[in-house]
Amino acid sequence: MDIYEEALNLHKEKRGKITTSLRDIPDSKEKLSLYYSPGVGGVAKHTAENPESLKEYSWVNNQVAVISDGSAVLGLGDIGPYGAMPVMEGKAMLFKHFAGIDAVPIVLDVHETEEIISTIKAIAPSFGGINLEDFAAPKCFEIEERLKAELNIPVMHDDQHGTAIVTLAGIINATKVTNRNLDSTRIVVTGAGAAGTAIIKLLNLYTKAEIIAVDSKGIISKDRDDLSPEKHSLLIYTNPNHISGSLEHALTSADIFIGVSKAGLLTQDMIRTMSDDPIIFAMANPEPEISPDLAIEAGAAVVATGRSDYPNQVNNSLGFPGIFRGALDNGVNKITDEHKLAAAQALADLVPEPTADKIIPGPFDEGIVDAVANVIK
Amino acid sequence: MDIYEEALNLHKEKRGKITTSLRDIPDSKEKLSLYYSPGVGGVAKHTAENPESLKEYSWVNNQVAVISDGSAVLGLGDIGPYGAMPVMEGKAMLFKHFAGIDAVPIVLDVHETEEIISTIKAIAPSFGGINLEDFAAPKCFEIEERLKAELNIPVMHDDQHGTAIVTLAGIINATKVTNRNLDSTRIVVTGAGAAGTAIIKLLNLYTKAEIIAVDSKGIISKDRDDLSPEKHSLLIYTNPNHISGSLEHALTSADIFIGVSKAGLLTQDMIRTMSDDPIIFAMANPEPEISPDLAIEAGAAVVATGRSDYPNQVNNSLGFPGIFRGALDNGVNKITDEHKLAAAQALADLVPEPTADKIIPGPFDEGIVDAVANVIK
Repeated sequence: MDIYEEALNLHKEKRGKITTSLRDIPDSKEKLSLYYSPGVGGVAKHTAENPESLKEYSWVNNQVAVISDGSAVLGLGDIGPYGAMPVMEGKAMLFKHFAGIDAVPIVLDVHETEEIISTIKAIAPSFGGINLEDFAAPKCFEIEERLKAELNIPVMHDDQHGTAIVTLAGIINATKVTNRNLDSTRIVVTGAGAAGTAIIKLLNLYTKAEIIAVDSKGIISKDRDDLSPEKHSLLIYTNPNHISGSLEHALTSADIFIGVSKAGLLTQDMIRTMSDDPIIFAMANPEPEISPDLAIEAGAAVVATGRSDYPNQVNNSLGFPGIFRGALDNGVNKITDEHKLAAAQALADLVPEPTADKIIPGPFDEGIVDAVANVIK
Repeated sequence: MDIYEEALNLHKEKRGKITTSLRDIPDSKEKLSLYYSPGVGGVAKHTAENPESLKEYSWVNNQVAVISDGSAVLGLGDIGPYGAMPVMEGKAMLFKHFAGIDAVPIVLDVHETEEIISTIKAIAPSFGGINLEDFAAPKCFEIEERLKAELNIPVMHDDQHGTAIVTLAGIINATKVTNRNLDSTRIVVTGAGAAGTAIIKLLNLYTKAEIIAVDSKGIISKDRDDLSPEKHSLLIYTNPNHISGSLEHALTSADIFIGVSKAGLLTQDMIRTMSDDPIIFAMANPEPEISPDLAIEAGAAVVATGRSDYPNQVNNSLGFPGIFRGALDNGVNKITDEHKLAAAQALADLVPEPTADKIIPGPFDEGIVDAVANVIK
């Protein structure tokens, strides 16, 4: 039985992954009359007049929506809302398990940017925060930016920023392990979608390192005439020396490879052209850009992937639970660049003496949520 | 401390009324890899290809959304989404407590009929059913009709049909108590909004009784030139003898008064002009059209209200939990007139020997949900 079949059986047996529970049992006329009509009328009147007070009097104080249109689900692509639901319910499960947050999976049967934005705005008063998930690039950028600007609750597209935060945490400690000064490195990022773009922007805020972005057509450079506006804008943060050409060219004498692209993209020969003791983050899912064993054989000093069956799993669950835990508990309505940098540093600091096999915490290590939540304030 | 203040304190202490729980604890790498990436990919692939199977593999099999735009909340009127939230969360609590259904409160920050419909359609794949709540008349009619026609999950506006079902159950047994043949009665319904309209339509399906609808301007008749299209259409079901005039006129020699209008509308003098042993359903909330004590003093044989502190509470919680329980369990995607009639009869049958003080079950009586759920098939 393969893992897909095993997962199907388990989901069917359990009838899903989440359920609701009650904070008190309304088992008397008195309680019913307080939690529902007529008593709840007093609460309704109060929250209508003071919308912010909904946080005190309803479940939104501890609750987020996990919202997707299913346009970029795992490695499956644009599978729509019915396909997205099991994944969003899974994310809701992680929110509860790791951070005690009540998360509600919401999937959208609309696909245009403006429809998505107006739908989410229309339901936003229902939620304490919004975790956007598995929206395809480039629409994910405008959707998140607009919602952040127009809503007064924390909004984060986890595929972008959760990934970027955990990646940066890993990079910080990988440079420690290899005795590098990150500011003097050259970093090659393959994949210029949601995750790649966010990684590049967060790296750029953290370090003066030379960053080169590479997509399926090669190095993103001003010589390219095929760049979308989103990819073109990456030139603000990358390629200061205006190089162009192939991934191979970008990697020659580079220090760090960060892949959020596709299985098998990176070869041993490419790694051998990099600087000594290169750092390889091969995070394509479920199959990485190169297998850790091959990367190490070719000379990699530190290897990270998205997989749980190798050391150094770059796992979003290190980030989003603490980020929203902190935002909800500390009344933070905008998750800023400063929050992201602080969260990455907090995660890196959880491994004070990193080694090649342990640059970031494992998902079940203690104290992760608290460490991250404490800096979202 | 009044009940509003007591309710505020309780809601603040409990931090809301509902929370989420997990059907299994993902406390190992193995479980994480089945409930989330990569295993969940197999489930996502399956449900993308077979949307109906989402009921087998996700929480939607046992889940409904309680959705409101806050345009007609309790007696408070159009207080908007932030005011509506504590009420919808309360309804979600009742769904769980009475029927074990996982309900999610969703409040809408849009107010036009088309926007409301398109927003709910956009999020509908997230839910196993939709309980519409506290939408103002007349927009509630089109919203419900369109969603029922365009979605493939059960949709019910509880203020209409829940109220109508429980009212009909009570009327069936009240006529037993007063030895009436319902078909030979005259029924006056005051209030021609969401509840009144649904009560009239359901009564019309059940009985040949003469029904007179009355709004704040008097009897709804073809002589009126101030009728909205919705009220005008009530003439299909009411006023076969084309009478016109005041409530007093309508009530003269009438058998049954059904009020979903406003406090104090009905006087003892009016009751004294009705037929012998009149039946009075004074269901305005929180203050009825006449107090039960005054109604009985004026000769009423059976009195019902919306209140828990008098006998015969016409309480929607007798209806919606079993209706959605049955719909979810029996795969019913449209709640039909036949379902409503059967649910009313099932509720009436739960009190096989009704008396003036007990024409319908109390909210905590045993077997209500099962009795109703069994006929939604």
